[in-house]
Amino acid sequence: MKIPKAIQDLTNQFERLPGIGPKTAQRLTFYLLHVPQNVLDEFSKAVIELKRGTVQCSVCQNVAEEDPCQICADSGRDDSVLMVVEHPLDVFVVERAGVFGGVYHVLHGLISPLENIGPDELFIKELPERLKDGKIREIVLGLNPTMEGEATSLYLKNQISKIKDMTAIRQQINPSTHQRINALKITRLGQGMPTGGDIQYADESTLKQALEGRREY
Amino acid sequence: MKIPKAIQDLTNQFERLPGIGPKTAQRLTFYLLHVPQNVLDEFSKAVIELKRGTVQCSVCQNVAEEDPCQICADSGRDDSVLMVVEHPLDVFVVERAGVFGGVYHVLHGLISPLENIGPDELFIKELPERLKDGKIREIVLGLNPTMEGEATSLYLKNQISKIKDMTAIRQQINPSTHQRINALKITRLGQGMPTGGDIQYADESTLKQALEGRREY
Repeated sequence: MKIPKAIQDLTNQFERLPGIGPKTAQRLTFYLLHVPQNVLDEFSKAVIELKRGTVQCSVCQNVAEEDPCQICADSGRDDSVLMVVEHPLDVFVVERAGVFGGVYHVLHGLISPLENIGPDELFIKELPERLKDGKIREIVLGLNPTMEGEATSLYLKNQISKIKDMTAIRQQINPSTHQRINALKITRLGQGMPTGGDIQYADESTLKQALEGRREY
Repeated sequence: MKIPKAIQDLTNQFERLPGIGPKTAQRLTFYLLHVPQNVLDEFSKAVIELKRGTVQCSVCQNVAEEDPCQICADSGRDDSVLMVVEHPLDVFVVERAGVFGGVYHVLHGLISPLENIGPDELFIKELPERLKDGKIREIVLGLNPTMEGEATSLYLKNQISKIKDMTAIRQQINPSTHQRINALKITRLGQGMPTGGDIQYADESTLKQALEGRREY
C-alpha cells in the first residue's frame, strides 16, 4: 500500500529534524491530519517566516529582531566581559538562567575537522575585531566540554594570544595606545559534577575535573 | 531578554505537537535557523499541503490520495473481513506488517467520555451501512487494549448485535433477504505477551490475558 504523497512529504520533512526518527515523524504527520487547516496554515507560516523575521546581530552574531540585538544595544550590560558560545540557543539558555550580565559572541558552530568545519566557516574572525578598542577585559569560553568544544577553545585562546603579542609590539612603538588589551583575561566555564548529579554515575573525566576544580568550603 | 517573535511563533507551533515539550520545541526551532531558506520553504509547503493533498475515503474513512482509497478499490482484497481501527496510522502499520488481507474501517478516534468524545464524533454510524449487503462475514475489532478502546469495542459489539436482531425480524417477514448477516462474526485482536517482552516486567492484566489466551503448542 502506497502512503499518500502529501503524508510522505511531511514525514520526510520531520525526519530531517534532529532527534526525530521515522516513527516519530510519521506519528507527528498523522497527528496533524486531525487538526483544522487554519492550524496548519499558522504552522506553515511560522516555518517560512522563521528566518525572514529574524536578523543576525552584526556585533555578537546572535539571532535577533533588530540589529544590533537587544543585548548589544543594552547600556546596562557589562561590556567588559564577553562570553563566547556555540549557538544562539546557548545565549537564550544563559539569559533564562539569569546568571551572566556581560555580552556574547556567537560562533554558530564549532571547529570540527570530521565534519569539514574550519575556523573560516564560523564567526571567529569577527571576535578579534571586538577586542581592538580594549573595552573587553575578560573572555569567557562558554563552549561545550566536548572534543570539538575543546579544539575550538584552544584555537580561540591561540588567536587571542597572537593579538595580545601584536598589541605588545605596537605598544612599544606607540605606548599611548592599546595599553589595556594586555590585561585581557581568558577564562572557561567550570567543569565538575552537575547539580543533581550522582557520583556513582559520573564518568572518570568529570570526576577528574571535579577534583581539580575543588574549592574551599 | 525577549526571544524574537519569529522564533517564539515556531516554538509554540512545535509545542502543540504530541510528545514535544518546550525544550525540544526550542531545540528544533533553533536547528531550523541554520538551514537554508529553500528547506524552510519546502517544509512550510509540506505542512500546508498535508490535508489539501489527501482525501478521506468515503468507504473506509481512511486518508488517501483518491476516493475510494487504494485498499477499498483493490479487488484482490478479501472484502468479507473488515478490521475496525482507531487511526489512519494504524492502517499503515498493519499494512506495513503485511499481516492482514481484508478491508478496514477507520473510526478516527475512540469513545472517551472524559474528553467529551461520543459515538457521534466518530465514524461509527458509517459502519452499519457497510454491513447491509451481507458481504462482510467477520469484523475484527483492532482497537487498542485501553479503557477507551474497550469501551468503544463494547459499544460497537452492541450496535452490530442490534443490526443482527433487526435483520432477523426482517428475515421472518421476507426470508429471501439478509440471510447472511446473521452469520456475521465479531472478533478482537489477541492479547498477551508482546514479542520480545519479558514476563518479569509484564503487568498483571497482560499476564492474565496471556494465560486466558494460551494455545496448544
